[in-house]
Amino acid sequence: MGISSAVPRCSVWNRWTGLRWLTSFPRRTLAQQRVTSAPGTLQRRKLSGVPTSVVSRPWRMRPRGRRALHTASSSFQEVMLTSERYGVQRLPFALVSDSDVAFFERVMPGRVITNPEELKSFNVDWLKSVRGCSKLVLKPQTTAEVSQVLRYCYERNLAVNPQGGNTGLVGGSVPVFDEIILSTVLMNRIVSFDKVSGILVCQAGCILEKLNEYLEEQGFIMPLDLGAKGSCHIGGNVATNAGGLRLLRYGSLRGTVLGLEVVLADGSALDCLASLRKDNTGYDLKQLFIGSEGTLGVITAVSILCPQKPKAVNLAFLGCQSFAKVLETFTTCRAMLGEILSAYEFMDEKCMELVERHLKLSSPVTGSPFYVLIETSGSNLTHDEEKLNNFLEQTMTSGLVTDGTVATDDKKIKMLWSLRERITEALTHDGYVYKYDISLPVGKLYDLVTDMRARLGQSAKNVVGYGHLGDGNLHLNITAESYSHSLLDAIEPFVYEWTARYNGSISAEHGLGFKKKQFIKYSKPDEAVFLMQRFKALLDPKGILNPYKTLPSSS
Amino acid sequence: MGISSAVPRCSVWNRWTGLRWLTSFPRRTLAQQRVTSAPGTLQRRKLSGVPTSVVSRPWRMRPRGRRALHTASSSFQEVMLTSERYGVQRLPFALVSDSDVAFFERVMPGRVITNPEELKSFNVDWLKSVRGCSKLVLKPQTTAEVSQVLRYCYERNLAVNPQGGNTGLVGGSVPVFDEIILSTVLMNRIVSFDKVSGILVCQAGCILEKLNEYLEEQGFIMPLDLGAKGSCHIGGNVATNAGGLRLLRYGSLRGTVLGLEVVLADGSALDCLASLRKDNTGYDLKQLFIGSEGTLGVITAVSILCPQKPKAVNLAFLGCQSFAKVLETFTTCRAMLGEILSAYEFMDEKCMELVERHLKLSSPVTGSPFYVLIETSGSNLTHDEEKLNNFLEQTMTSGLVTDGTVATDDKKIKMLWSLRERITEALTHDGYVYKYDISLPVGKLYDLVTDMRARLGQSAKNVVGYGHLGDGNLHLNITAESYSHSLLDAIEPFVYEWTARYNGSISAEHGLGFKKKQFIKYSKPDEAVFLMQRFKALLDPKGILNPYKTLPSSS
Repeated sequence: MGISSAVPRCSVWNRWTGLRWLTSFPRRTLAQQRVTSAPGTLQRRKLSGVPTSVVSRPWRMRPRGRRALHTASSSFQEVMLTSERYGVQRLPFALVSDSDVAFFERVMPGRVITNPEELKSFNVDWLKSVRGCSKLVLKPQTTAEVSQVLRYCYERNLAVNPQGGNTGLVGGSVPVFDEIILSTVLMNRIVSFDKVSGILVCQAGCILEKLNEYLEEQGFIMPLDLGAKGSCHIGGNVATNAGGLRLLRYGSLRGTVLGLEVVLADGSALDCLASLRKDNTGYDLKQLFIGSEGTLGVITAVSILCPQKPKAVNLAFLGCQSFAKVLETFTTCRAMLGEILSAYEFMDEKCMELVERHLKLSSPVTGSPFYVLIETSGSNLTHDEEKLNNFLEQTMTSGLVTDGTVATDDKKIKMLWSLRERITEALTHDGYVYKYDISLPVGKLYDLVTDMRARLGQSAKNVVGYGHLGDGNLHLNITAESYSHSLLDAIEPFVYEWTARYNGSISAEHGLGFKKKQFIKYSKPDEAVFLMQRFKALLDPKGILNPYKTLPSSS
Repeated sequence: MGISSAVPRCSVWNRWTGLRWLTSFPRRTLAQQRVTSAPGTLQRRKLSGVPTSVVSRPWRMRPRGRRALHTASSSFQEVMLTSERYGVQRLPFALVSDSDVAFFERVMPGRVITNPEELKSFNVDWLKSVRGCSKLVLKPQTTAEVSQVLRYCYERNLAVNPQGGNTGLVGGSVPVFDEIILSTVLMNRIVSFDKVSGILVCQAGCILEKLNEYLEEQGFIMPLDLGAKGSCHIGGNVATNAGGLRLLRYGSLRGTVLGLEVVLADGSALDCLASLRKDNTGYDLKQLFIGSEGTLGVITAVSILCPQKPKAVNLAFLGCQSFAKVLETFTTCRAMLGEILSAYEFMDEKCMELVERHLKLSSPVTGSPFYVLIETSGSNLTHDEEKLNNFLEQTMTSGLVTDGTVATDDKKIKMLWSLRERITEALTHDGYVYKYDISLPVGKLYDLVTDMRARLGQSAKNVVGYGHLGDGNLHLNITAESYSHSLLDAIEPFVYEWTARYNGSISAEHGLGFKKKQFIKYSKPDEAVFLMQRFKALLDPKGILNPYKTLPSSS
């Protein structure tokens, strides 16, 4: 059996030897490769995937202003109001009055923000692409306070925008108009952790990274990992059904979230905060709130199943001569690495060119049209290395992989990861970026990039594709010197129609929020959207929870 | 590091050496152990967990008859009608008329069953504990036919009982009165399988075992495995959110089911049959149907993510001196076996006594108050054995485990599994069995058995506990010479109240069906049940889908 073959194990890559294969396998050249990196490289997974400038455009209409959107470092004043940019009509919710503020002050003294300066950061998304004009931020500490707030708002017909770490990318986390911002920032208590079952129960405002640090001390990790982990709240992660870097290994939040506590629009608390792996008593209500982006209820606490912290992590960065070989390498890799495979990312050569040009990062592997990044996480370093080595032998022998390097120590792993994770940043230096986050059957993943490149020709500066191949998640990015209506028209709705033709999803992991809600029809049939609207009406008949988001209006 | 310690690897257990440790570790005695078994042992996982006689009792009332329930081999005629036994009132649905039958004959010629003899097996559950009196079984082949049937039934106000393999244990799969049985038995087509993504799409009536066989030929397996796999339908598995033997490793159907096609009560088809790992476009409607036991819609097709077939499987059967040590062995095992752990089952010595006494099975490990069965599944036999050996070294050294045996070849693995899986069968030979399927926080799992044993004293013959410890799932069984009201009163509602006190679930994996629907309040708050009822009313306003099941009546 190949798996237990007598091929001598090559352990030279145990500690970042920079093993590099040349195409003339089986002859190998071991060469110490350097990954040079610009300052800040080691901030890997810190809001990666988040561009510093993005396309933001109205649904089926032009943005009112043509000025380029602002980077994350722009001041809040420069961001055009969402209502103006998108020409949205305010729904007939009540206006916040002084007596409302007085009521909230009684409920949570000192945790009611009305100061305009303090309000600014809550009104603008991280991308600086949408801006609301809320006059009021509330910072409850308990579920009871959230209940009191919502009961009051429901009676008064005041709209509410639940907000976690405000790291969303589709405008779901900030108000469109003057919705009251209900921030979970002070709901950051860990309720319990059971080391036997690995089940963590915590309030919704706990920061993902803090939870992970807490768990690591006890030999566990969170089952999800995101670029925004330093800021995002677990409640927001669950509300948006965040995907991220560990999904390939630990599955989606649909399986790992075991329980939720949710406050409904009318203020009633729904306790589904079970800490059980199995519970078949009635319908699984919590699932409706996972991924509903705060439109059906406010998540106040989460129970989540956490995996063991892996004892060993290895990374391989490989070159492939075609996308077909990227796919075949994936199936080979999954068969041979099996249970230790924890990431399979891919990127095309254009991505690497941009990373080298704009960020001065130097890849140890060059000259291939495609690259893959494979991570293993396991409980035994020796075993994992042996499996990885067997896999590399096989893929080199068969010609699937023509070049590569591997790393096991943390610093070099981070450097290699940065080649993948800083693509987004590199793109923002390339010009105006049209960004798409698409799910497709894995076999079709790159065809969209090829078709788009052919379609756009010289009108685009660069058309690049990268993403979580193991999850069938493509990040399609198109750059141009500046924003252009005609280019946008060449891209949309073509990109959505193409995705729909292959039964893909127009939002793999970012959600719909404010920006994409009108495009839902490309991924969901009318009957499904209609049913969603009926659920919304049932749970929030006045529509006060995160209005203007997720679903197109019923009319 | 312990993981990469230089301790020489012991490979003697590579091929069923029957390695057995005595308590005076590090001295070991290697003794060839035999597992004797009665004929039929190798039918492991074949409807395991399914008793041949069970308690069936009304909600808060006495059964009308006192005669013992019948075994699976009893004739259908002997099973008392559910409506009589439980004193249920028929809801005012229409009666099936000749013109109805004629209509269905036009829709699906030759697939309409009205012959009383043929109808019998569809009207009685596998346990022979509940019986309906349906006059009509329909066997659609397509979703369009299911739509036609339901549209017609909805208009005519005819009640419908969706039925898969009819292997459910809580009376959810057979009619209570004369509901039309809509069988998925002819909807057994595999639509597609993508070897790159591992995603299978198939009709709801595919038999689980057949799907697994199909996948194994391609190097994959189904993410779930059940005792009833030879009969159960994947649609029924999803409709009941089946747990089973692989849940510890591959997670629940909440995470592995990627898409569903469902026909709603009014006959409209809802296409959520995505084959994508990531899709964040609106609410995840399919989740509502998973585990809703056919009360919200009829699942007609399933898209499911399938894992690679493991290349190596090992089994260890170990003795522990206390339940605390069973728990500590679990945490040690999870840390050291990590990604290859695929099952962690436990059973008390009473279970083993009954298996030996009634089935003449001889355990190679004796003399301990508790036993655990640990299965590993991985991609490299040598690595897996080494990990298992390291774990066994450690648990023996620390005294967590005092005795044990291991197996790697398939036959011996099945024999060891039979010690665990035939407990249910052994119990049925011990007398009248009161059965409970409970989820609890892992640390509390056995306390319920201890408390129950103390409570019942001499009034019970045996009180035993076993189950999926890794999932927090206890099978509590109480035997007596014969059925007794007073014993039942001593058990219930005590068992439910005890479970509720520790936030457990009164149905871990079997669902509520007909038999347990009135006990939902022990695991779900009133607000949740009320919300479930509202969802039911929204999706099935006439209540024609699987009436009398899952939820207590709204009144």
